[in-house]
Amino acid sequence: MTSTGNKTSAASAVPGVRWGVGYAGIKQRPDDQSATDVCDVALMEMAQGSTIAAVFTQNAFCAAPVKIAQQRLQSEHLQIRTASKAYCLINSGNANAGTGAAGYAAAEASCEAVANALGVAADSVLPFSTGVIGQLLPVDKIANIAHSLADDLSADNWAPAARAIMTTDTVPKCFSRSVELAGKSVVISGICKGAGMIKPNMATMLAYVATDAQIASDDLESLLAGAVNLSFNRITVDGDTSTNDACLIAATGCAEIQVAPGLPGWDEFASALNALFIDMATAIIRDAEGASKFITISVRGGASAQECLDVGYTVAESPLVKTAFFASDANWGRILAAIGRSGVQNLDVEAVEIYLGEVLICHDGGTATDYQEDRAMEVMRQPEIEVTIDLHRGASTETIWTSDLSHDYVRINAEYRT
Amino acid sequence: MTSTGNKTSAASAVPGVRWGVGYAGIKQRPDDQSATDVCDVALMEMAQGSTIAAVFTQNAFCAAPVKIAQQRLQSEHLQIRTASKAYCLINSGNANAGTGAAGYAAAEASCEAVANALGVAADSVLPFSTGVIGQLLPVDKIANIAHSLADDLSADNWAPAARAIMTTDTVPKCFSRSVELAGKSVVISGICKGAGMIKPNMATMLAYVATDAQIASDDLESLLAGAVNLSFNRITVDGDTSTNDACLIAATGCAEIQVAPGLPGWDEFASALNALFIDMATAIIRDAEGASKFITISVRGGASAQECLDVGYTVAESPLVKTAFFASDANWGRILAAIGRSGVQNLDVEAVEIYLGEVLICHDGGTATDYQEDRAMEVMRQPEIEVTIDLHRGASTETIWTSDLSHDYVRINAEYRT
Repeated sequence: MTSTGNKTSAASAVPGVRWGVGYAGIKQRPDDQSATDVCDVALMEMAQGSTIAAVFTQNAFCAAPVKIAQQRLQSEHLQIRTASKAYCLINSGNANAGTGAAGYAAAEASCEAVANALGVAADSVLPFSTGVIGQLLPVDKIANIAHSLADDLSADNWAPAARAIMTTDTVPKCFSRSVELAGKSVVISGICKGAGMIKPNMATMLAYVATDAQIASDDLESLLAGAVNLSFNRITVDGDTSTNDACLIAATGCAEIQVAPGLPGWDEFASALNALFIDMATAIIRDAEGASKFITISVRGGASAQECLDVGYTVAESPLVKTAFFASDANWGRILAAIGRSGVQNLDVEAVEIYLGEVLICHDGGTATDYQEDRAMEVMRQPEIEVTIDLHRGASTETIWTSDLSHDYVRINAEYRT
Repeated sequence: MTSTGNKTSAASAVPGVRWGVGYAGIKQRPDDQSATDVCDVALMEMAQGSTIAAVFTQNAFCAAPVKIAQQRLQSEHLQIRTASKAYCLINSGNANAGTGAAGYAAAEASCEAVANALGVAADSVLPFSTGVIGQLLPVDKIANIAHSLADDLSADNWAPAARAIMTTDTVPKCFSRSVELAGKSVVISGICKGAGMIKPNMATMLAYVATDAQIASDDLESLLAGAVNLSFNRITVDGDTSTNDACLIAATGCAEIQVAPGLPGWDEFASALNALFIDMATAIIRDAEGASKFITISVRGGASAQECLDVGYTVAESPLVKTAFFASDANWGRILAAIGRSGVQNLDVEAVEIYLGEVLICHDGGTATDYQEDRAMEVMRQPEIEVTIDLHRGASTETIWTSDLSHDYVRINAEYRT
């Protein structure tokens, strides 16, 4: 196992990247003193010469900003190595999804307003939005703060940016790692947001990652695909894939250390990047709407990775399993029922074993011989719970992370627009 | 459109069928006066010469009684036309699922105890169980009341039987229709139960239907398959398919009226049967755990029935859509996001229209031009809500029924075993 780099203080600066934040008035600001630090727009600046890769939601109703950002990343200007500085303009409080032609115009206009303030071309600015679906983005509110966003750009603004992109998140999510490569050090920092409508499909809600390593465009894309697959594509809160999911990574090259396949340090860098992505993805699950439990579901002994994922997701998304976790009730019959309906062909139910933590609860199609419910209940009372399902029919293993279904999930999502 | 028969007083007697009920002590009896009518075992008797058809859960972890009932229905004794009386022995409070070899033995032994009391062969008795998964069926408790069950058999016990098979149901579900065929009248009665773990796949939770018409075995199977497909296979509460779903129909022939394809009355009988099944299936949704809303989702303009169902179920099972219904919030962006992730290939999102009741809320990929949120909110406040999604890409239409996701759903399922 290669090193996964060193965790450093969250939100370490990345040479070549600056962030600005501001409050445009899109997100409601609570009426209390601490509300003055509530921002709803973040602007990320990436140095000239950076490489950029990104993945986006596969929801057919993807938002206007998603389509525009995708188009701009295909342009010659941004595709290989940025010819000038590039920017991400991110707002929370409004997803600008389900807004038709007017939504495209609004996303374009908000990029233009910020580009004018920065003195750059509009197509250097990639738009991202998150929040309520179906309401038009208020361009004027963003235009009003365009100059102050530009003035606020600073290398030390990762943590405020993590806070500005929050919606129902209760904590900002910000992580950094450093990796030693050929005696020098490179840094990787990332922020992300997301708490509900979480079942990313090629990307999560929103995540922005940067490193000062120098990485060719193709290599950055493959690193990103690998990291997303191990992290954001392994989590679920409610099975709902958002219209706005996006994950972007920039390599500024400012450290003047090249990372490439075949060069020393490639594996170390990839491991550290994967670890950072897993930090981010699991932070989303820990902060999931109403969550009181963090649940790891490992499915092993599968004939294929896909059937492990089918079983894992069916268990993870069963409302009945999730409410049992919330209640700390070792009602493992619900896990068994979910496995049984997960669509695995010719499943030998007698061979399946289910563990709660270290406790074997089910084999031979029934309760384990030495099963003691009080031991299983002890596991269920913990805030972090591991479920292991052994299908005993192959060598594949997959792990996914999820949360429980609580009264607060219903409350948060019933009150979301009020 | 053919007649769907006449609704008669619920629980009309069906010549050739008798029910007995009893309290074995498997289900907790509440500590109040009215609790004396709580029963947990029902015994259905079908006259000699009846034809029987049944469908069962497709959950791989199906319960011991399901497997035994399936086997017995394959036997020569029951397959074509019963050589003697046949019985269904149904208990609530314990599913006898996930119980391994001991579970089979318990199901066999309970059939045997009742068969002895009746003076018939054990394989004339089909076992069915519903309740907590993973706990062994207490055979002694059933054996103790075997004689009183036999003594209780009566043609007028449909309503008490509907009550005896309830678990988290709050109301018994009992329906009857009569059909005029060639100047004579036949009756169809049915009872069912189910409130959670509802996404039947070939069958619902538990349903028992009988008619005094005379129907050949093959025809009865095809009538059952058709009726189930239009009813129990079109409902979902939480997407969880139970381990114990079963639906059985008996045709006693006592009315001496033959129903067969090609004979007059076949279409009328099928229509009445389908209507009765839809009565039962929608009654389950109206009584769904914690439900405060009854939601009909119609998907039209699909290229195939399957894609209409994919869209309908994705919307119906989205926890975010369900909490918005609970909150009476016209947050249609969640419906749009669910359609977008439902896996329909090459969906033209600009063509999709979404209606809440009669109100067009979304077209051209955004809010409808004349959309007024207060009109949509007015629809959302109703206890019964119709959502219509027009994909505008074909001629297929499908309708499914579901419930909302409320605080009470979480409470009921968190407290289920306490």
